[in-house]
Amino acid sequence: MNIYDISKKAGVSIATVSRVMNGSDKVSEKTRKKVLDIMKETGYTPNAFARGLTFNTMSTIGLLCADCSDHFLATAISYLEKGFRANGYDCILCCTGYELATRQSYLKLILSKKVDAVVLVGSTFIEENIEDNQYLIDASLEVPVVSVNGYLDSPNIYCTLCDDAEAICNVTTQLIQEGFQKTLFLYRSASYSGWHKLAGFKKAYRNAGLELSNKQILCHHGDINETKEMLLQYYEKDFKFDSVVAGDDELGVSAHKFAKAKGFHIPDEFSIIGYNNSKVGVCCEPELSTLDNRLEFVCSNTVQSVMNILNGQSVPRKTMVSAEYIKRGTTNF
Amino acid sequence: MNIYDISKKAGVSIATVSRVMNGSDKVSEKTRKKVLDIMKETGYTPNAFARGLTFNTMSTIGLLCADCSDHFLATAISYLEKGFRANGYDCILCCTGYELATRQSYLKLILSKKVDAVVLVGSTFIEENIEDNQYLIDASLEVPVVSVNGYLDSPNIYCTLCDDAEAICNVTTQLIQEGFQKTLFLYRSASYSGWHKLAGFKKAYRNAGLELSNKQILCHHGDINETKEMLLQYYEKDFKFDSVVAGDDELGVSAHKFAKAKGFHIPDEFSIIGYNNSKVGVCCEPELSTLDNRLEFVCSNTVQSVMNILNGQSVPRKTMVSAEYIKRGTTNF
Repeated sequence: MNIYDISKKAGVSIATVSRVMNGSDKVSEKTRKKVLDIMKETGYTPNAFARGLTFNTMSTIGLLCADCSDHFLATAISYLEKGFRANGYDCILCCTGYELATRQSYLKLILSKKVDAVVLVGSTFIEENIEDNQYLIDASLEVPVVSVNGYLDSPNIYCTLCDDAEAICNVTTQLIQEGFQKTLFLYRSASYSGWHKLAGFKKAYRNAGLELSNKQILCHHGDINETKEMLLQYYEKDFKFDSVVAGDDELGVSAHKFAKAKGFHIPDEFSIIGYNNSKVGVCCEPELSTLDNRLEFVCSNTVQSVMNILNGQSVPRKTMVSAEYIKRGTTNF
Repeated sequence: MNIYDISKKAGVSIATVSRVMNGSDKVSEKTRKKVLDIMKETGYTPNAFARGLTFNTMSTIGLLCADCSDHFLATAISYLEKGFRANGYDCILCCTGYELATRQSYLKLILSKKVDAVVLVGSTFIEENIEDNQYLIDASLEVPVVSVNGYLDSPNIYCTLCDDAEAICNVTTQLIQEGFQKTLFLYRSASYSGWHKLAGFKKAYRNAGLELSNKQILCHHGDINETKEMLLQYYEKDFKFDSVVAGDDELGVSAHKFAKAKGFHIPDEFSIIGYNNSKVGVCCEPELSTLDNRLEFVCSNTVQSVMNILNGQSVPRKTMVSAEYIKRGTTNF
């Protein structure tokens, strides 16, 4: 039994059946009753496609993330999926990788699926070069675009994020006050979050009236042990750092392994601060001090924003929360 | 411009337009040409819903996993999504949690979305009690059901998995030969994978002709530090174990932290083997020896199986691969 059978049995056109399903007021009460009675009688329930066709929505959200094997992004997706599911929405997942061109083509693809909104999971989607964000602004003219942990100033783009700059500035200032003035800022990628963390690091030195060497800033993308080896070489050849502020906990663990390999006492001789409050930070001894960027709140706020936008309610374009410092064994403060 | 406009412009019914889009042979060549010309002329491309309605497929795969913030499951989802995407399929993600009733209702929900296949990510979906798997068998009568890392013997259910039992049996035998005969088998849940690992552990003791105490088997669900504390108590009160074979790397890291807290020398006094070859195992020092269950192969084989099934090709119902032992610092062999 499908929409064609219903139309045949009711002696009306498919368009009329569709209008009834759609709740259109262009159908007479008599016709509506006839169609609904036949639907009831035959036990017909419109299937997902037909509903999509008539209501012009499939109640789906497109979740774009660079790489869902990244623990932080996977945790975000887990929170988002549960939140949207609780609101009756499906999530189509799209792992885009980190390349701009691929991200652009995936966004186009996901829009062609007639999703109700697009959620950009992780700050890697926002580029420093303004023109490189034009595809996001274009997309936001079709559907609401919502960013988790990145901010883009555009009328139909809504962002919930952690104040990464402030968090990094605060802990770096603490390190300076403790006497650690040769801190290495180690980050993974020049994403929105990455350069805001960097800005926070620079600000702490500026506030303290200290000169910052460009050798104190290092962008590196590698796994835990590759990064440790790189740090061993960097220490020998380039810069004798006494502490590390890391853009994520994995980089923090690499710094931890570096310090152990050098025989430095943690935290007295060598202090380390990670970011994200993820599992890897409790696997090492002493455990890694870190910054918790309140991912659960950020994600639940993102879901709520999307629901409010889809219900026509006004939503703040930017919601920013402060991080929480988690003291463990790699810092004295 | 939509299907109604096309039908109006061509002077034919919507059903006819739909038949043309569908490639039905119940349309005259003349009508077909007229409809296609108007589509071309107006630049109309059928949208996703209309295509779904006519082809009765949305080219979507339902991915069910218990918890995608679990690193192992998230990595599987990442591989699967990339594989299905490369074949032109979208993935609807559904994080079901671990409760049977919730999993059942989510599976029902995902079937109502008219997915082309359902992939069960992780072995938690297969229950030991046969009746509790009936909902999966029922679903497999509607669409192909494919399991990653669990096996269920049913005509339309296809499984790719690692031989967990053999892998655990082998490393346990090695421990016995090294003189570690008070090994604790520590696992998280009585899932398909969990009880097969347990069976492998028991088999090693049987093969060696050694008696196995039921105190050597411990099922525990907790985070890394909770599990460490539990182990400290268990050691004091219940059983003085000399090594741990863990069902996953996180449990292995807990055992590592337990051994450090007790001051045991790893690996001479106390050996540990994890499972999954995940990131957490390289965060501790010495790094955790582990078993790699070849997740990437398992996932790519799963994608290929689904594609072959949907193309009407014959596919083995069960594909089993052996794990690879990764020697690191917590074992001597």
